[in-house]
Amino acid sequence: MALQTDAYELSMMQTYWRQGIGNRHAVFEVFFRKMPFENGYAVFAGLNHIIRYLKDLHFSATDIEYLHSTGFFDDEFIDYLANFKFHGTVRSMVEGELVFNHEPIVQVEGTLLETQLVETALLNILNYQIVVATKAARIKNIVGNQPVMEFGTRRAQEFDAALWGTRAAYIGGFDSTSNVRAGKLFGIPIAGTHAHALVQTYMNDYDAFKAYAQTHHDCTFLVDTFDTLKSGVPSAIRVANEMGDKINFKAVRIDSGDMAYLSKKVREMLDDAGYPNVKIVASNDLDEKTILNLKTQGAKIDAWGVGTKLITAMDQPTLGAVYKMVSVENAAGQMVDTMKLSNNVAKMSTPGKHQVWRINDKKDGKNEGDLVTLVGEDPRKLDSLYMFDPNYTFLNKTVTDFNARPLLQDIFVDGKQVYKEPTLKEIHDARQSHMDRLWDEYRRDLNPEVYPVDLSQKCYDNKMKMIKQIHEYVRKLH
Amino acid sequence: MALQTDAYELSMMQTYWRQGIGNRHAVFEVFFRKMPFENGYAVFAGLNHIIRYLKDLHFSATDIEYLHSTGFFDDEFIDYLANFKFHGTVRSMVEGELVFNHEPIVQVEGTLLETQLVETALLNILNYQIVVATKAARIKNIVGNQPVMEFGTRRAQEFDAALWGTRAAYIGGFDSTSNVRAGKLFGIPIAGTHAHALVQTYMNDYDAFKAYAQTHHDCTFLVDTFDTLKSGVPSAIRVANEMGDKINFKAVRIDSGDMAYLSKKVREMLDDAGYPNVKIVASNDLDEKTILNLKTQGAKIDAWGVGTKLITAMDQPTLGAVYKMVSVENAAGQMVDTMKLSNNVAKMSTPGKHQVWRINDKKDGKNEGDLVTLVGEDPRKLDSLYMFDPNYTFLNKTVTDFNARPLLQDIFVDGKQVYKEPTLKEIHDARQSHMDRLWDEYRRDLNPEVYPVDLSQKCYDNKMKMIKQIHEYVRKLH
Repeated sequence: MALQTDAYELSMMQTYWRQGIGNRHAVFEVFFRKMPFENGYAVFAGLNHIIRYLKDLHFSATDIEYLHSTGFFDDEFIDYLANFKFHGTVRSMVEGELVFNHEPIVQVEGTLLETQLVETALLNILNYQIVVATKAARIKNIVGNQPVMEFGTRRAQEFDAALWGTRAAYIGGFDSTSNVRAGKLFGIPIAGTHAHALVQTYMNDYDAFKAYAQTHHDCTFLVDTFDTLKSGVPSAIRVANEMGDKINFKAVRIDSGDMAYLSKKVREMLDDAGYPNVKIVASNDLDEKTILNLKTQGAKIDAWGVGTKLITAMDQPTLGAVYKMVSVENAAGQMVDTMKLSNNVAKMSTPGKHQVWRINDKKDGKNEGDLVTLVGEDPRKLDSLYMFDPNYTFLNKTVTDFNARPLLQDIFVDGKQVYKEPTLKEIHDARQSHMDRLWDEYRRDLNPEVYPVDLSQKCYDNKMKMIKQIHEYVRKLH
Repeated sequence: MALQTDAYELSMMQTYWRQGIGNRHAVFEVFFRKMPFENGYAVFAGLNHIIRYLKDLHFSATDIEYLHSTGFFDDEFIDYLANFKFHGTVRSMVEGELVFNHEPIVQVEGTLLETQLVETALLNILNYQIVVATKAARIKNIVGNQPVMEFGTRRAQEFDAALWGTRAAYIGGFDSTSNVRAGKLFGIPIAGTHAHALVQTYMNDYDAFKAYAQTHHDCTFLVDTFDTLKSGVPSAIRVANEMGDKINFKAVRIDSGDMAYLSKKVREMLDDAGYPNVKIVASNDLDEKTILNLKTQGAKIDAWGVGTKLITAMDQPTLGAVYKMVSVENAAGQMVDTMKLSNNVAKMSTPGKHQVWRINDKKDGKNEGDLVTLVGEDPRKLDSLYMFDPNYTFLNKTVTDFNARPLLQDIFVDGKQVYKEPTLKEIHDARQSHMDRLWDEYRRDLNPEVYPVDLSQKCYDNKMKMIKQIHEYVRKLH
């Protein structure tokens, strides 16, 4: 997958290599500028794919052949690529962690050559998986303790999105997936019974349900092919009555029509027929907004199948995370901090190599906010911590009696993986427990409070100094 | 990739298989209900991936092992899957063709087992590639003859979307891609020079551009790292002056700031410095709307790099195409037509196995509309053709002196590929020539006319008869 990169990464690498500075040290950090969906938190996902990508990163013989054929690259540079391996150091948030805008979520340190090459693929992975995990968490927030299934493969943006998207959804709080490959590769529980086509094959609901019941113990019948109330549900009940203990009549699924109205009628019919424990599953372009509305209307729905709007993160299909150089070795062999200036405050990067600390109150365990420090600073040594908004510095507070937890963890050190990944189930559960440390004000889906992401005094001073330096540099040019 | 399917496909297959009807014949058709982006046409893409998927479709040893481990499937059914191959017949629109809602764009015919298995993957491919190809065509429509490059890999929904998305963009009219893997696998021209990081590495524009110029003949300099007008462009000119004939000073690229204002100023600076042929490339969250606005404002931009909004098809990230059974073999061995009824007219399918004909005027070559017929009908034999809207039947016309071109072509016959794919360049060019046959009224990006997709009288009568039958069936249940 070494060619899963932008052409300009290779062009820049050729410049570094030809100029003899390819092995200079550089540090890049990934961050995003806006909270996805205007949510109060984002859920980190993508590290597993990043690890797989970096471990296997090499140029195959046919890759090398192709690069020669383009005519854009020298033979010697291509020879270098033929032997390329990633020897860098990667620090990252771990999957299931809650993350926020304007803080580094991944940090890549190594030679200019290797740090440049991996930019595109890392962003490609993170920009997608984080929005899906976050969207899933928003949906789970409304669904509560009811089961919620990911059904979006057919609406996903090609094969990888279906696979990694459903994994991200599971991290964000979903319970199962329809994607069988994700079941195999990640151990996510799979779910799904039958489609309208089964009913069409048998020409009517009763014969289709009967055939299904004769070939499966657990039965969820899809009841809306012809007419939910007149044909689908009565047929399901008739088959259940006939089959008795031979099947486990688990649920009926409704995929069209007025879900609020239908679910109440279906509930009555099932109860009247002696099936009060049979569940009603709904699917049909659902997301947190439609589910909330259905609940408000008193819909009798017990489980939810969510597809399109989750797997494409329809209201914001990409996070917009960027990968910015924060520190680089100069000609004298010293590391110097660097930033991207912009007229747009949100587009400025924060110079220097960082750690992110989650500050929480020792008494109630709730988060006070995140603190971005320069590497080497350790807020755990402080008795009281002055936290201030880096844009509106008059917004500030002093925190005492706090815990500080470093969030960027070593994943690779000098190319060697040092991080042992938890199981996916552990990640799924960790996300839930991280949520418990967030005040409700940050957790609501609509108009949440803005979570504080502050810079340490040192980090802030460093940034201000650098902005001044660049302004002076530009002024001197005229 | 056999497990790139929804669990319910395998559950249904188990029912068919256990009931001894798995080898009954069935026909499914893919269609979509709404034009993407409310555009006047859609561009077909995805067939190449479908062909690769079907040719290689099998369950690997580890797939089989996984299916056993789920406990959902019998051993005998799994043994059948272990030897599964696709032996079906596929007819499809070809890539680059213009397609419309409510007409079949792919048709799959074969056993119940094989036609059911492939549903999910086919939709997964088509639902993405068609929206990107269509979005690309919309952008190309505004860009006109200027070059337009696909730059979205880092914002794509995982690896496959970046790869197949950029191929779809090329089909839709784009000229090149930043994705090197797409260059290798599909032969799309690759484009890209350097990022802000290069300038940060050298600490200033001049040194960075100089280094780039010493290592590349063709030079496009990114001029907005610190200050476009005060530092970026003057440095680019200085380097070009110093390097003279040693480089080909092709362009400068602007990635932030007010593009309309900056491009005019940059144009003046380049002209004044004696570089009237050096181009200005713009990139930064562009799409057809922003490009149209920039053009209206007289921005001096010669080439466009488009990323996020294209590669995610941001305003409609999925087509919403469905795969519906239109005909199936009954117990007596006869093929009977079938449909999915719905209270929602748009959600009804059209029963029967179809062909789609593009009707155009012999004199001016422009399209009159598409005609969906039952297989076996051939409008080429008619002197005059009565075309009517299948919902508003009082909207109708009689066409004479026309050509009728069948659009669904044989791709696989009984599992064997019979279709020879054109080159990607041929597909790219074919799309443009298809556009020439569309009246301007269908081609505009905003509020286009609705292109007629009509049913033949036979096809219409068949649908009405079936709706009546189903209504009678449901009535009788009560």
